[in-house]
Amino acid sequence: MRQPSLDAIFRPRSVAVIGATERAGSVGRTVLRNLVSHPFGGVVFPVHPTRETVLGIPAYRDIPSVPGPVDLAVIVTRAPTVPDIIEQCVEAGVKGAIIISAGFRETGHRGAALERAILERARGAGMRIIGPNCLGVMSPTGGLNATFAKGMALPGSVGFISQSGALCTAILDWSSREHVGFSAFVSVGSMLDVDWGDLIYYLGDDPHTRSIVMYMESIGNARSFLSAAREVSLTKPIIVIKTGRSEAAARAAASHTGSLAGRDDVLDAAFRRCGVLRVDHLSHLFAMAEVLAKQPRPSGPRLTILTNAGGPGVLATDMLVANDGELAELSEGSLSALDRVLPRHWSHGNPIDIIGDAGPDRYAEATRIALDDSNTDGLLVILTPQDMTNPTRTAERIVDVVGESPKPVLACWMGGADIQAGTDVLNRANIPTFDYPDTAASVFNYMWRYADNLRGIDATPSRPVDAGDVTRQRTAATVIDALRPMGRTLLTEFESKQVLAAYGIPTVATVLARTVDEAVARAGAIGYPVAIKLNSETVTHKSDVQGVHLALESETAVRHAWSVIEAAVGERVGPGHFQGVTVQPMEQLDGYELIVGCSQDAQFGPVLLFGTGGTLVEVFRDRALGLPPLNTRLARRMMDQTRIIEALKGVRGRRRVDLDALEQLLVRFSDLVVDVPRIRDVDINPLLASPDRLLALDARIILHDWSVADADLPRPSVTS
Amino acid sequence: MRQPSLDAIFRPRSVAVIGATERAGSVGRTVLRNLVSHPFGGVVFPVHPTRETVLGIPAYRDIPSVPGPVDLAVIVTRAPTVPDIIEQCVEAGVKGAIIISAGFRETGHRGAALERAILERARGAGMRIIGPNCLGVMSPTGGLNATFAKGMALPGSVGFISQSGALCTAILDWSSREHVGFSAFVSVGSMLDVDWGDLIYYLGDDPHTRSIVMYMESIGNARSFLSAAREVSLTKPIIVIKTGRSEAAARAAASHTGSLAGRDDVLDAAFRRCGVLRVDHLSHLFAMAEVLAKQPRPSGPRLTILTNAGGPGVLATDMLVANDGELAELSEGSLSALDRVLPRHWSHGNPIDIIGDAGPDRYAEATRIALDDSNTDGLLVILTPQDMTNPTRTAERIVDVVGESPKPVLACWMGGADIQAGTDVLNRANIPTFDYPDTAASVFNYMWRYADNLRGIDATPSRPVDAGDVTRQRTAATVIDALRPMGRTLLTEFESKQVLAAYGIPTVATVLARTVDEAVARAGAIGYPVAIKLNSETVTHKSDVQGVHLALESETAVRHAWSVIEAAVGERVGPGHFQGVTVQPMEQLDGYELIVGCSQDAQFGPVLLFGTGGTLVEVFRDRALGLPPLNTRLARRMMDQTRIIEALKGVRGRRRVDLDALEQLLVRFSDLVVDVPRIRDVDINPLLASPDRLLALDARIILHDWSVADADLPRPSVTS
Repeated sequence: MRQPSLDAIFRPRSVAVIGATERAGSVGRTVLRNLVSHPFGGVVFPVHPTRETVLGIPAYRDIPSVPGPVDLAVIVTRAPTVPDIIEQCVEAGVKGAIIISAGFRETGHRGAALERAILERARGAGMRIIGPNCLGVMSPTGGLNATFAKGMALPGSVGFISQSGALCTAILDWSSREHVGFSAFVSVGSMLDVDWGDLIYYLGDDPHTRSIVMYMESIGNARSFLSAAREVSLTKPIIVIKTGRSEAAARAAASHTGSLAGRDDVLDAAFRRCGVLRVDHLSHLFAMAEVLAKQPRPSGPRLTILTNAGGPGVLATDMLVANDGELAELSEGSLSALDRVLPRHWSHGNPIDIIGDAGPDRYAEATRIALDDSNTDGLLVILTPQDMTNPTRTAERIVDVVGESPKPVLACWMGGADIQAGTDVLNRANIPTFDYPDTAASVFNYMWRYADNLRGIDATPSRPVDAGDVTRQRTAATVIDALRPMGRTLLTEFESKQVLAAYGIPTVATVLARTVDEAVARAGAIGYPVAIKLNSETVTHKSDVQGVHLALESETAVRHAWSVIEAAVGERVGPGHFQGVTVQPMEQLDGYELIVGCSQDAQFGPVLLFGTGGTLVEVFRDRALGLPPLNTRLARRMMDQTRIIEALKGVRGRRRVDLDALEQLLVRFSDLVVDVPRIRDVDINPLLASPDRLLALDARIILHDWSVADADLPRPSVTS
Repeated sequence: MRQPSLDAIFRPRSVAVIGATERAGSVGRTVLRNLVSHPFGGVVFPVHPTRETVLGIPAYRDIPSVPGPVDLAVIVTRAPTVPDIIEQCVEAGVKGAIIISAGFRETGHRGAALERAILERARGAGMRIIGPNCLGVMSPTGGLNATFAKGMALPGSVGFISQSGALCTAILDWSSREHVGFSAFVSVGSMLDVDWGDLIYYLGDDPHTRSIVMYMESIGNARSFLSAAREVSLTKPIIVIKTGRSEAAARAAASHTGSLAGRDDVLDAAFRRCGVLRVDHLSHLFAMAEVLAKQPRPSGPRLTILTNAGGPGVLATDMLVANDGELAELSEGSLSALDRVLPRHWSHGNPIDIIGDAGPDRYAEATRIALDDSNTDGLLVILTPQDMTNPTRTAERIVDVVGESPKPVLACWMGGADIQAGTDVLNRANIPTFDYPDTAASVFNYMWRYADNLRGIDATPSRPVDAGDVTRQRTAATVIDALRPMGRTLLTEFESKQVLAAYGIPTVATVLARTVDEAVARAGAIGYPVAIKLNSETVTHKSDVQGVHLALESETAVRHAWSVIEAAVGERVGPGHFQGVTVQPMEQLDGYELIVGCSQDAQFGPVLLFGTGGTLVEVFRDRALGLPPLNTRLARRMMDQTRIIEALKGVRGRRRVDLDALEQLLVRFSDLVVDVPRIRDVDINPLLASPDRLLALDARIILHDWSVADADLPRPSVTS
């Protein structure tokens, strides 16, 4: 399934620059100069319509005239010329192209047409294209600089992919000041051909790359990204900053349940599912690349903090706990061991305050004990310069003790010149150092979350098909296929509950009544009080047409409700929208109201939702998204992302809800969505969760339009 | 009311060092060396029991032997010697002392006794004391270094006060690297005498100090802090980092309504009320001091972002919006003006993307228009190095345009060496620069919040006493005083509602019934359905004894409820706890459930609470705290800190709740708390808020024990 390798782009033996010129300040000149200023071990062919040389290098009229094979063409000519150039490249057997030129889809329809023309000519020929509208590509470990940037990235182990050329320039400038080195430095432009997925696979295989860092503005081909990231993140950390959260914030204002799944939240769910770490600050992007490349992954969120001063330890604790990290609870053994090596006044707990006069030996002994504690998932060592403090020698001793520990260790040597030598010692030993203790704690929070996401990848649901599956699929199909002849896409509440019930999701006993007398009879059979609701094949929001009447105590009340509904529907939307009512027993609302749903994302297909339901759903937005399919472990991860989980576990002496049953319900709900791609939206709201039972009180299913063929229905973006 | 000035400590003309020695590495030697290495314009007297000189300086046996007056005594001798030394100092007329010595309350009872001995000897003499257990004091603008730190702070305009000596050392070290200068650098130690309030007042009057920065571990005397901060923050920014949020997080686990007011949250409320800016990261502490000292305060949260590249603008927007800042909506006039000066492809909105090829002139013109827009409360200018970019010249033009603008301007020149000259230009003109656009947006969020807090200070409630006041105070007093003879401190729901009703807070019509027949009669008079609740002078949580029965439809149901309650109370707590029931009409629960409450904080006295009520109160913890007294403006500020306010404003087409009435209700609630200090805790939960009305459905009042004299009851910590 994989496309041809990107070696021609990253490791070319010959590069043609189409549009090379000598004009001062021109992109064509800069690209050519960059290529020849940094030896990459290959040959450069400037292509110019008339000149015999450019910058003293023999030039050629066009690609066909170039003597010898060309691996990579770098194109800087005006946009309208590019399709023909690409055609020539394909004919000449060029394997890769970087289109730096702008003037394509970002300028409107004509530019978009040019892009299509390029794709038509390139597809099938096996040529890979980066761009258009990009800064170019650097491969610092091989020496290649095929960009029009002002400088060259330092060689190193970070593979950097950016969707913003301007940011590339700024990062390049900043990275030389901060001595950050790169294995690859890619400006992707508008990703006409080579996309995130291609680059992730390529850098995943690249031995020089230890971590992959991305600045992302749009996801592009979601499936390609997901597959590549799920595979590669198991061996190399992938860290992304993705802009556009605030768009989601804006959409949040448009408060309609159907739009709950804001696309940025879906991306978050996708990143979690494929083990990608998303950071919020540009300043964290490269810091996390460094930390994750240098340090092992924590196996949990429990940090032990070791310090020679109280204040910095508390600062770190505040930040740790504020973002759901935990202070490790030291074992009895560790406490006794620390008692033996520390002065009497030590803090006797975590943070381990080893007192201001701590010297290198005390630091080393306490570090050894803290690291050995099985409750410790990671260690932060803080040093403030005080009497007796020896920052450098302490660093050396810590490095010795930490050795090849399988647990991550971070350090915070606070201060300026006094501690510089110490931080150098730590950095050389791959122990990351931070100026501030709270920053270090934030980094640890990123680390355990990232590790937790990675563990989720292993949990790829595989689902044995059994007889039950066949039955429930058949039942759901029967209900849904019955709607096809009428072209109906909205299931009534009654029909929706039938589908859910087929998948073992408990629903309120609900019966149909086509006449008022039938409604009265049904109510009598069920027993008062009852609820009467509109049954309509067309009306989505029943309460908008006075279609919900609760706690009816008598036949009179039922008849009254019937007439109110019939009149309101007739008046507001027309009598054709009234197909009787449903009659349900009144359930005691003694549990928590949850929402379970699925809606479609344009990029990721079906997206699952779990959270707090009821009237305040829009206010608290306490919800988690996930991509189907689920297993119980993934279902539990969704539940754990909400705040309502605390209530479900039982608060203030209340009994807990059966969380295992809730996991199972989510998995069956996910199965339904996967089995029946015809379903576009489905909401259970509320799902009543009490210690004794789970119960879908109301449900709504909407189908994809029947004009969409079965084969074209969106499928889950995660495939096993 | 103010204590003697701290001039003797910060601007002494003569300093005695008691415990001066020549022993290498000793604190006594370091202090003496620091004092003589940095001329402060005064004389230094080493005090040593036997030596004639210390470090070549004439020494004296004890304080009485020193020839001439001593302004400041710096004491470094062992703790047990300090009380007598202080006594000698007082007798000799010494005006100030810095006790550097450790070994006091931090070591236990004996140390605490030594502290008391010191206070006894010093009080009344007008001598002020800093410490004990501190690093000392620097006054860099005057040259004084009365510390045992390794270096001297640079002179500057930041007054820094730290409760951690270790952190002082690290900050000092860091500040010389970062060229941050100080007007004062104070290690407060355990604040035996001089506390936050004293230092805030002193630095508030100090002409060298432009901003006050504090590292706080405990608030100490809350009233002293509040008064000083409220006064000084009107003229100088006060920025604090306070550790210990995580303690609150831990307490949050102990989920009981009564403990909702975690003390860290109270501190937040106090900081807001007195105009102090609290930051979460150590790295923000000095950054905010610099920004607030250099730039005017924004008059609102609306930021305009001007950039030559899309990505960085979106990054800044994400961060801005994520923390409740807003993108300014540019006026039509500004849009047209920008159309005239910008290329056709500009973003036509905020962020104003002036395109990658923007030169200095385009930057300048767009900056002028953006700043002039009345919708702009602040401006962030972002520059990425691209073709045509001239970072230095652009900076110069921006500085010209900004001039003396009354709006704050921040800048983000991205990159390394290329932009250094430009950032220098901006910094010299007091325009703060940031490496990352998202950092700049965070800083703007701090700025407008800080400005908003300051506006709150002006809103000091003053309350004209009218006839209504007298009446309601009398009514409340009647209900409450009736409990004194029995020593009762728990009001029944019925009594609680009487008190609230006196203050004009609408409550459900509630009648008492002492017998079951009376209950039936009352229910009949009210009309079914009714609610029956236990009336008890002792049982706090009615539902624990089956004391709440809702939606009763008939006499039979009422009689059944009565017997259930009577039996349950009798069985579980004893028949003496059953004082009949209350009968109330069943109110339709068609509104939002809010909670309004007041509880006591050990440091700040009564603290008000407003937020989302109901069963999920512990899960969402959607609440705001405030210090009484309130006026409508302060009440609205509390409401605005919650999420439920969005629902109250009307969502999804629902009608809004009368927010003016809710403000009024909160003010009256605050009046009650201020008027009746005997009240310890009061909760209205739920307060039902619907478009048509506000209604206290349940209420609970608990009094301070009657053994506490009226004069000793805690009073509000904010006084006008």
